[in-house]
Amino acid sequence: MKYSIVTFASHSALQILHGAKQEGFHTIALTIQGTEQPYKSFKVADEIITIKSYADFFAIEPELTNKKGILIPHASLIAYLGIDAIKRIKMAYFGDRTILSVEADRDAQMAWLSEAGLHVPKTFNTPETMDRPCIIKFHGADGGRGYFLAKNQQEFYEKIGTNPLKKYVIQEYVVGVPIYIHYFYSPLTDEIELMGFDRRYESNVDGIGRIAFKDQMGFAFETSYTVAGNTPLVLRESLLPAVFQMGAATVKASRIRANQGLYGPFCLETMVTPDLNFCVFEISARIVAGTNVYVSHNPYSYLRYNEPMSTGRRIAREIKTAIEQNQLEKILG
Amino acid sequence: MKYSIVTFASHSALQILHGAKQEGFHTIALTIQGTEQPYKSFKVADEIITIKSYADFFAIEPELTNKKGILIPHASLIAYLGIDAIKRIKMAYFGDRTILSVEADRDAQMAWLSEAGLHVPKTFNTPETMDRPCIIKFHGADGGRGYFLAKNQQEFYEKIGTNPLKKYVIQEYVVGVPIYIHYFYSPLTDEIELMGFDRRYESNVDGIGRIAFKDQMGFAFETSYTVAGNTPLVLRESLLPAVFQMGAATVKASRIRANQGLYGPFCLETMVTPDLNFCVFEISARIVAGTNVYVSHNPYSYLRYNEPMSTGRRIAREIKTAIEQNQLEKILG
Amino acid sequence: MKYSIVTFASHSALQILHGAKQEGFHTIALTIQGTEQPYKSFKVADEIITIKSYADFFAIEPELTNKKGILIPHASLIAYLGIDAIKRIKMAYFGDRTILSVEADRDAQMAWLSEAGLHVPKTFNTPETMDRPCIIKFHGADGGRGYFLAKNQQEFYEKIGTNPLKKYVIQEYVVGVPIYIHYFYSPLTDEIELMGFDRRYESNVDGIGRIAFKDQMGFAFETSYTVAGNTPLVLRESLLPAVFQMGAATVKASRIRANQGLYGPFCLETMVTPDLNFCVFEISARIVAGTNVYVSHNPYSYLRYNEPMSTGRRIAREIKTAIEQNQLEKILG
Repeated sequence: MKYSIVTFASHSALQILHGAKQEGFHTIALTIQGTEQPYKSFKVADEIITIKSYADFFAIEPELTNKKGILIPHASLIAYLGIDAIKRIKMAYFGDRTILSVEADRDAQMAWLSEAGLHVPKTFNTPETMDRPCIIKFHGADGGRGYFLAKNQQEFYEKIGTNPLKKYVIQEYVVGVPIYIHYFYSPLTDEIELMGFDRRYESNVDGIGRIAFKDQMGFAFETSYTVAGNTPLVLRESLLPAVFQMGAATVKASRIRANQGLYGPFCLETMVTPDLNFCVFEISARIVAGTNVYVSHNPYSYLRYNEPMSTGRRIAREIKTAIEQNQLEKILG
Repeated sequence: MKYSIVTFASHSALQILHGAKQEGFHTIALTIQGTEQPYKSFKVADEIITIKSYADFFAIEPELTNKKGILIPHASLIAYLGIDAIKRIKMAYFGDRTILSVEADRDAQMAWLSEAGLHVPKTFNTPETMDRPCIIKFHGADGGRGYFLAKNQQEFYEKIGTNPLKKYVIQEYVVGVPIYIHYFYSPLTDEIELMGFDRRYESNVDGIGRIAFKDQMGFAFETSYTVAGNTPLVLRESLLPAVFQMGAATVKASRIRANQGLYGPFCLETMVTPDLNFCVFEISARIVAGTNVYVSHNPYSYLRYNEPMSTGRRIAREIKTAIEQNQLEKILG
Repeated sequence: MKYSIVTFASHSALQILHGAKQEGFHTIALTIQGTEQPYKSFKVADEIITIKSYADFFAIEPELTNKKGILIPHASLIAYLGIDAIKRIKMAYFGDRTILSVEADRDAQMAWLSEAGLHVPKTFNTPETMDRPCIIKFHGADGGRGYFLAKNQQEFYEKIGTNPLKKYVIQEYVVGVPIYIHYFYSPLTDEIELMGFDRRYESNVDGIGRIAFKDQMGFAFETSYTVAGNTPLVLRESLLPAVFQMGAATVKASRIRANQGLYGPFCLETMVTPDLNFCVFEISARIVAGTNVYVSHNPYSYLRYNEPMSTGRRIAREIKTAIEQNQLEKILG
């Protein structure tokens, strides 16, 4: 009996399922009622199992285990099921789930990145200590919603108005260009692979530059950072050695923080400054939606694989290799 | 004798002709004198017929009919030949041309979209009734040229200055990010397919954000919206069910407005707001130039077809299937 | 014995080496100590030769000649080795190196482009003669670093402050959208091929539009134009005839300026205005990094070649054809 690749139908499920089919797996999409259409139309799922809510996952888990299912996590799974529930999952799970608690805690993330030697933005514990323009990010914020910019303590209090009770972090606003770096670390080969780069396309912040200064005057709108999509980009090639080095250092520094340490896909979210330094403001310890840009081609992984190799397909390839080498325990956590 | 795919050499002709060759058709490019070079260099046309102006089309129409030509319409054909002339075309024509009159009338468009249940921007009949910032769009405007933004009645009259006699529409300016959705509806399978997304690259509005506020002060330039090109993007996957639903509703609502209703490629032009709602400000009832981004690969159609499937090739595939199934009348209008 | 394709491991070396492997060449990457990792990971180099600095090139040149090496130049080679050193290279060199001195001199560049009939931005010899907003570019500036915008003579002197001794050019600031045009001219076929378009992604100028006007007030940052990466785009198809014409005119006008004239890859760097005119502000007489966007697919070259054809691969294809036709001297300079 074949192994099945299982994922929740959202976030990056199309490429996860499509990549699994390319590698010969049986594929199962878990859909919430009313969201089946894309997964049917794109023909990526051999099986669609519809549930009423994420919480119903545990009711079908035994069936998935019987089908030799391996669950691939992504941000929607983490957001909607929650880390505590994820820890209770008994079916095969791709990745080290002990790293998720580190990822969920902004302070722990920054400690991890700093220890890896990466440059991170300055954070301020209180509005009173702000000495430069900052971006205020809420914990558990839903894809950038509610984030705001404040140049000083006064602006902070003016804008925090309606959100005073949520947990937040006050982070230096780094002026540069956002670049998201997609990595894949294989515990089977002990190699870091660079899977590419994207830039988030955020509403409305990526639209406001289209309004001239004179038109913005007297036009009341607030900047917001809700992710609506992603766009492709390639990096200046002379920065790639640093990119590989950053990825390796991040994996290494993860090992004291989690059972096995970080493996599989992950992403460093950076601002690249005019001096071409990377300021890393966040890490995602799993597949990011920016890799959806590269389902049908990938300017980086094509160099190595000479065929379309999405991150979803790379995950399936890793699992296939682990099965062939009888090392599945190395990539389930 | 083979069927021929015929199109005017502009807009999206390269992908239409290339896609037709991929599907095995004979291809004919109708070029206006002096524009042949790209079509020669890219080797997409088995035959290039040069005419002096669009109006000369009718002189060569019998020849095209003799060659079993099927004409593929696009925006340049519509703009330069005109809807009335298109109605007089006797050769085989892909698509329902009765929908073009609806598309050409901004009020009829909005009625169509509203009836499909889509969210559309508020429009104002007179500058006096404007109660928020608006974008003023001229009827028959040439690819965004002349559009302007006005925050109130006073600004409207200041800026309308040199254009007072043209017909215009006053549309609420929605702050968000522009996303153009490419669809294909097949009357042979009764399925909506999602072909992808793009963002227009407009001069100068996509350049002005590169001028800092302090440099814009005292720098006299007017914002303009002329389409210079297109850039790729992927959409947040959790929004795809809504995208499919919007496409289906648009096709359904077209059926009382046209002989057969809308089929083949079409595009919903939207702003995505910070709350992740689609505000649909326009519909194109035919192939859009944004699909040119996806000639050599397509992150969405690749999921379904596992080969490069541009919208141009999808049109040719539809025609080929219709011929094979002896249902050509279903896709000619 | 096979020919070897040799290049310095930076700028566009990944695609040059990968393309050469696709065409069957032996590939050699010359890396500076510490930069080997990307070239190993992506498996593009059959051989990696590590040197301490660019200047050590001449020590290994005889070895490269023995391996029938053909050196492919790019901007990093030119920047770090220098034109004078390049003239002393004895091994086979792809391209006409006499054009490099023209490219390096901004005045000579503008004379070349003007003579080709291209529209170029107005330049001012002194700040005192400025009659419109200008961008000030330093000679030999490192990828846009230090460029600044000045609306008038007074701003010029305020901002030039720390850089008063460097050579600079004062160029009209054209408001439009930046579009970089990638060409390939083959002396074997005497054909201009269009390889595509990109837009540079510059830090911080492509990030500042994300800061609203009210947040830019009181936020001290200077605009800078350091290239961090590149993003893909397609051009409005009706502009392609002009694009081909511009490329042909540029090649023609190069012939009085260099031994053989310009051949191989080159790039016109333009602003496209709201009236859809190309204002050409620079030419690169060799491969540009923007072509890195198209390693795995290319919406334009796919039309002609029906396979992935990066500019790096196109170079290798040209060399392969020249070898087969015994015309290698036509493409070495």
